[in-house]
Amino acid sequence: MHGHPDAVGLDQNQANHVSLSPLTFLERAATVFPYKPAVIHGNRVLSWADTYTRCRRLASALIRRGVRRGDTVAAMLPNVPAMFESHFGVPMMGGVLNTLNTRLDAESIAFMLRHGEARVLLTDREFAPVIRHVKALLGDQDLLIIDVDDPAASAGELLGSIEYEQFLLEGDPAYAWQLPPDEWDAISLNYTSGTTGNPKGVVYHHRGAYLNAVANILCWGMPQHAVYLWTLPMFHCNGWCFPWTMAAVSGINICLRRVDPQVIFALIQQHRVTHFCGAPIVHGMLINAAHFIPEGLSHPVSALIAGAAPPAAIIEGMEKLGISITHVYGLTETYGPAAVCVKHESWNQKSISDRARLNGRQGVPNLMEEAMAVLHPESLQPVPADGETMGEIMFRGNIVMKGYLKNPRATEEAFAGGWFHSGDLAVVEPDGYVKIKDRSKDIIISGGENISSLEVEDVLYRHPDVLVAAIVAKPDEKWGEVPCAFVELKEGALPSAEGILEHCRSRLARYKVPREVVFGIIPKTATGKIQKFVLRQRLKSTEALE
Amino acid sequence: MHGHPDAVGLDQNQANHVSLSPLTFLERAATVFPYKPAVIHGNRVLSWADTYTRCRRLASALIRRGVRRGDTVAAMLPNVPAMFESHFGVPMMGGVLNTLNTRLDAESIAFMLRHGEARVLLTDREFAPVIRHVKALLGDQDLLIIDVDDPAASAGELLGSIEYEQFLLEGDPAYAWQLPPDEWDAISLNYTSGTTGNPKGVVYHHRGAYLNAVANILCWGMPQHAVYLWTLPMFHCNGWCFPWTMAAVSGINICLRRVDPQVIFALIQQHRVTHFCGAPIVHGMLINAAHFIPEGLSHPVSALIAGAAPPAAIIEGMEKLGISITHVYGLTETYGPAAVCVKHESWNQKSISDRARLNGRQGVPNLMEEAMAVLHPESLQPVPADGETMGEIMFRGNIVMKGYLKNPRATEEAFAGGWFHSGDLAVVEPDGYVKIKDRSKDIIISGGENISSLEVEDVLYRHPDVLVAAIVAKPDEKWGEVPCAFVELKEGALPSAEGILEHCRSRLARYKVPREVVFGIIPKTATGKIQKFVLRQRLKSTEALE
Repeated sequence: MHGHPDAVGLDQNQANHVSLSPLTFLERAATVFPYKPAVIHGNRVLSWADTYTRCRRLASALIRRGVRRGDTVAAMLPNVPAMFESHFGVPMMGGVLNTLNTRLDAESIAFMLRHGEARVLLTDREFAPVIRHVKALLGDQDLLIIDVDDPAASAGELLGSIEYEQFLLEGDPAYAWQLPPDEWDAISLNYTSGTTGNPKGVVYHHRGAYLNAVANILCWGMPQHAVYLWTLPMFHCNGWCFPWTMAAVSGINICLRRVDPQVIFALIQQHRVTHFCGAPIVHGMLINAAHFIPEGLSHPVSALIAGAAPPAAIIEGMEKLGISITHVYGLTETYGPAAVCVKHESWNQKSISDRARLNGRQGVPNLMEEAMAVLHPESLQPVPADGETMGEIMFRGNIVMKGYLKNPRATEEAFAGGWFHSGDLAVVEPDGYVKIKDRSKDIIISGGENISSLEVEDVLYRHPDVLVAAIVAKPDEKWGEVPCAFVELKEGALPSAEGILEHCRSRLARYKVPREVVFGIIPKTATGKIQKFVLRQRLKSTEALE
Repeated sequence: MHGHPDAVGLDQNQANHVSLSPLTFLERAATVFPYKPAVIHGNRVLSWADTYTRCRRLASALIRRGVRRGDTVAAMLPNVPAMFESHFGVPMMGGVLNTLNTRLDAESIAFMLRHGEARVLLTDREFAPVIRHVKALLGDQDLLIIDVDDPAASAGELLGSIEYEQFLLEGDPAYAWQLPPDEWDAISLNYTSGTTGNPKGVVYHHRGAYLNAVANILCWGMPQHAVYLWTLPMFHCNGWCFPWTMAAVSGINICLRRVDPQVIFALIQQHRVTHFCGAPIVHGMLINAAHFIPEGLSHPVSALIAGAAPPAAIIEGMEKLGISITHVYGLTETYGPAAVCVKHESWNQKSISDRARLNGRQGVPNLMEEAMAVLHPESLQPVPADGETMGEIMFRGNIVMKGYLKNPRATEEAFAGGWFHSGDLAVVEPDGYVKIKDRSKDIIISGGENISSLEVEDVLYRHPDVLVAAIVAKPDEKWGEVPCAFVELKEGALPSAEGILEHCRSRLARYKVPREVVFGIIPKTATGKIQKFVLRQRLKSTEALE
């Protein structure tokens, strides 16, 4: 009846059409469960009413400092209450939250603050060395720096002009926030380290954040008042939208500054944690630290695992700990996980190796992501579900970014043909489940962090002795992958591997620094293109020899 | 960043913006769980793959018969597989599903088919007497009648030009259906018996159906593969959107043609039913039939109750049966329940009468309905949360109808001031929960069905002896309320009560016929307006005397 002559009077109005936004979840949690705990950090407990008031204060204080709708507010914070509150307080006043990867170097952070035109930066003592450098790099960019003076922080300077709790007091606790006029409005900005040098700014909208927050509940069967431990950094794709999910279930957020297995087990037991997320490395650490809980866990715990297919040892080890694992898959561009390896009851009867193989697949789109397909990269024709024909994983749906900030060319490429191109190569198995076979780009995933090989190569190329450089992923038991450098030297040059690494260390975040340097002639195609697959094979044969 | 100069390249495209529609849930259930049962009717079991194929056939067959996007397809059906399939097959081809209240008389049905401009009618042997009359009333309206020849139906003619299973065979099982171009497009049409004579056609859109289907899962904590018994008629607000909910959880629909406690208990035990919905009368019938399950139920069952506040006896009785009750509230205009009396753990410690009082409230908006407020009907100012000040319940959100079909004046009134006016008068208690105190309209709710007092009065006025007539709700243990007629006779007239009732029976659906007739002078205001509240008080004092 849309566009039909009978449709007169059936238009959208204020009563029947409201912007979808996860901000409504906070208001409801504070209305229905005002006295229930929302955020716990050490001995500090903030209720949903407290949290709602603090978020309104934050929004109001930002406005009073001149921040306007559409402005960017950046956060360089661990998983502390201020980080959680930023996910609501910033968008409540129309701001766009830019959470920063706290492991990055000053140059990357400065690039993001400049490119995202941040007006405000929230930071923590722990990151003072980097932020001090960032301030110098930014020069005269007008940036209000707010210190979150967390008593649990290690030593470190306060670099800002006001402390967070003081800043909150500037705001109106009853600030009458409004939903965004358009659910397509930006809610956050997440920089991804692509393969092409500069990070790309992935923009999320309120509609997608709302839907993914709900999809998290559905994909995991989360109950009301779930207790969620923040092992996953909130700076990663807005913690896969879980800050908003936790408001939707009126749950309890258990803060965590650092991934430490002993602390994690203690918090799980103390608060009866029901859910947490992480890369395989987090799960691996817990398995290796099982001696901290000799009698096992006292209650059932569920964990999501993403970032790489979980090896059988991880699934088996977590089962022994009494932690039920669900494997999910996604990218920064899809608000974190947008696919889930939905389990079938029949799998319970299978052997552990079969279960690991079945659960290690990327699976199917989650309920609220309309489509995940494996298509031929050019023709966009779907591959047959034969488990053998490779294609590129592509997404289509409401849990896909708006695009890359100030980068229409990259946006257009990413959305070519009306699909978001993931860059991951996969097959479809006969049961319709997707399984990744390779990455079409050369990203290295180390401990859940993406490392752009091009970025590291750029640094190597800046060394005076380097003629050709190539970074390749080397499989690693602990980190999943680590970067390995292949270096072809200039004639007559004779640097040490340690000298090359030192050069990298002074220019890169620590996790991006290659684990080893291999000197020699680098294989190239006739047209001069480096043959990385040959280098990968070399690493494999070296491994076999070890 | 919306409308911001930096927002270039951040527009909606095919990859990142897809119409929200519950049709995607069916496709996903059929992809992920093709062999799981979807619909069970007697000995017949249809899997999700079967159901998806049958729905595509239905969509395709409708197109081949000339039905176009935006056309209305009506269904006069009990809760059988064809009724479930219509909820997907009709909107898959862009049609609008008009489910008809099977208890209505031929004149009402004919009005709806004419007003909704139905092109197709699916019907069942059981309703042959009414539909035969409807055909005569419609005269030359071009209507394709399809018979659903259910072996479980009682005797009755086939009146259509083709049988449903034959009709499905006309359709393409692989029909490439498409999402609606706009999520605001109509998905269904539900006639409500308002107070103003003719029924109003409430139009739902795909966006609202999608969101309410998901809200059902969240409000009830429904797990994947929930087993749902169809005690609630699917013709009521599209079964509160549960056909779409069941696809979203890849659950099992247990069909039920008629509410019979013995059959209900048998199906609950046989299929291990986990969830069902109904008006208090359904729950009351089960409590009175507890002797059918002397050993109680073998597994936990959850039930939603709506239509009226559940009395303490119902809550206590259901608890004894091992059925956990949640009270929900809504209207046809809000896709069924849009509010829920969310339970608090602390209530478990209270007495049964306190629990009944707390759970009997209309509560708070569900997670995906943005607001339910109690406002002064004119000023639209919220009432204080004092449990005493009355106002009108109003809704605002995405789970509110598009409007009334071909009735812009009623639509405008319903949405005055940017809120949907429910017509229910309520207070807000200090904990923020809403409690209905009275209805501002004079609707009678009998066995979960709305009866318009004006409609019955109209019939009474057509009796040659009636001078003044007023219909008032009389409380009734079994039905909640029944209509009671007050009649002031013309001078010299002396009809029997039975004669008046016979007059009504030949002109009204059975449930609308008054239970009793009281003769006498009807109290009126100075301006001649009938004082129904005086009549209600008379009924109460009569009751007290009984």
